Amino acid sequence: MNGVRSTGELRNAIVSAARTEFAQYGLAGARIDRIAKSAAASKERLYAHFRDKEALFREVVADDVAQFFTAVTVSPDAVAEFVGDIFDLARSHPEHFRMVNWARLEGISLFGPSAAEVPNVPEDATAVIKAAQRAGNVDPAWEPDDLLVLLFGLGLAWAYWPDPRVTSQARQDAGRRRAAAVEAAARVIAPRPSRNSR
Amino acid sequence: MNGVRSTGELRNAIVSAARTEFAQYGLAGARIDRIAKSAAASKERLYAHFRDKEALFREVVADDVAQFFTAVTVSPDAVAEFVGDIFDLARSHPEHFRMVNWARLEGISLFGPSAAEVPNVPEDATAVIKAAQRAGNVDPAWEPDDLLVLLFGLGLAWAYWPDPRVTSQARQDAGRRRAAAVEAAARVIAPRPSRNSR
Repeated sequence: MNGVRSTGELRNAIVSAARTEFAQYGLAGARIDRIAKSAAASKERLYAHFRDKEALFREVVADDVAQFFTAVTVSPDAVAEFVGDIFDLARSHPEHFRMVNWARLEGISLFGPSAAEVPNVPEDATAVIKAAQRAGNVDPAWEPDDLLVLLFGLGLAWAYWPDPRVTSQARQDAGRRRAAAVEAAARVIAPRPSRNSR
Repeated sequence: MNGVRSTGELRNAIVSAARTEFAQYGLAGARIDRIAKSAAASKERLYAHFRDKEALFREVVADDVAQFFTAVTVSPDAVAEFVGDIFDLARSHPEHFRMVNWARLEGISLFGPSAAEVPNVPEDATAVIKAAQRAGNVDPAWEPDDLLVLLFGLGLAWAYWPDPRVTSQARQDAGRRRAAAVEAAARVIAPRPSRNSR
């Protein structure tokens, strides 16, 4: 398996091994020697591609964040359902979700000028929410940016919940929880016929 | 400052230094020598109190989680306002919030039999939500456990948001965001006069 790999194949193998290691252990806990061994590469060859552990971490994070946020798309006529997609994504790609969280704790930016290849997800989604407000599907009283953050909060509420009993029961309860998150989102966004209950 | 401290004072100094170190760097990134130096203790004395770094981490986490969750109390007639309290807590005690997150990623349990001194927060709060449902303040259609998780999701939505631009603007926008989280909670819990929009 060694020796015949192209530079691109070796690089992909390193990034793939790093993804597994970083998702499990975070930036500080990950070990370069485990990544190199898992990629069947020498540490010297690894450092020829990536300056240091943090550079490799940033590469994996940028990739994972792009995948995480482009895997869900909000459309103006299905804003509540978007929360169900977010719920599913955290369950189907827990390693991406973990990377986003490690990066936040490590103070590593996920958006902004340093990650040009990552689409500017908040701005794109905010534009869709504005369109949904114009179409009468979302209460125009909401600040679009605020609503977007709240919708992610609902969709990821179980993924963030620190009680391990939730995780252990996740499979059997997932359907009911997903429906609850979507229902909560539908109630939050619903345009109000009158303002008297505000 | 050295030499005259009692065993209890030394222990408190170590835990306090560990809290700062762990909140910043997590379990894997924290360094025992920095903790010992900050507590003006030798590593030998530190290890006389705590078996290893993870034992010290678990001590700090148990303490922080107890503080984090007992600092907010839900009452049956103010369930939506509870979300505002959660929002405030993540801002006023970011180090506790970070510890809860490091622990979740490290797979360290926050609740359950191993932390007997931590009140069983989810069960206590679930009982209050049931009381609020009986009193007509919360829609009885919600599964109380599910609703509790969703309320934390709303209250902590900005604390979890990975875009650093949110944090940098947090001070000026906090009031509006807090109000949005409470308003969202109020819409989620509101009893519905009819079931036709379900």
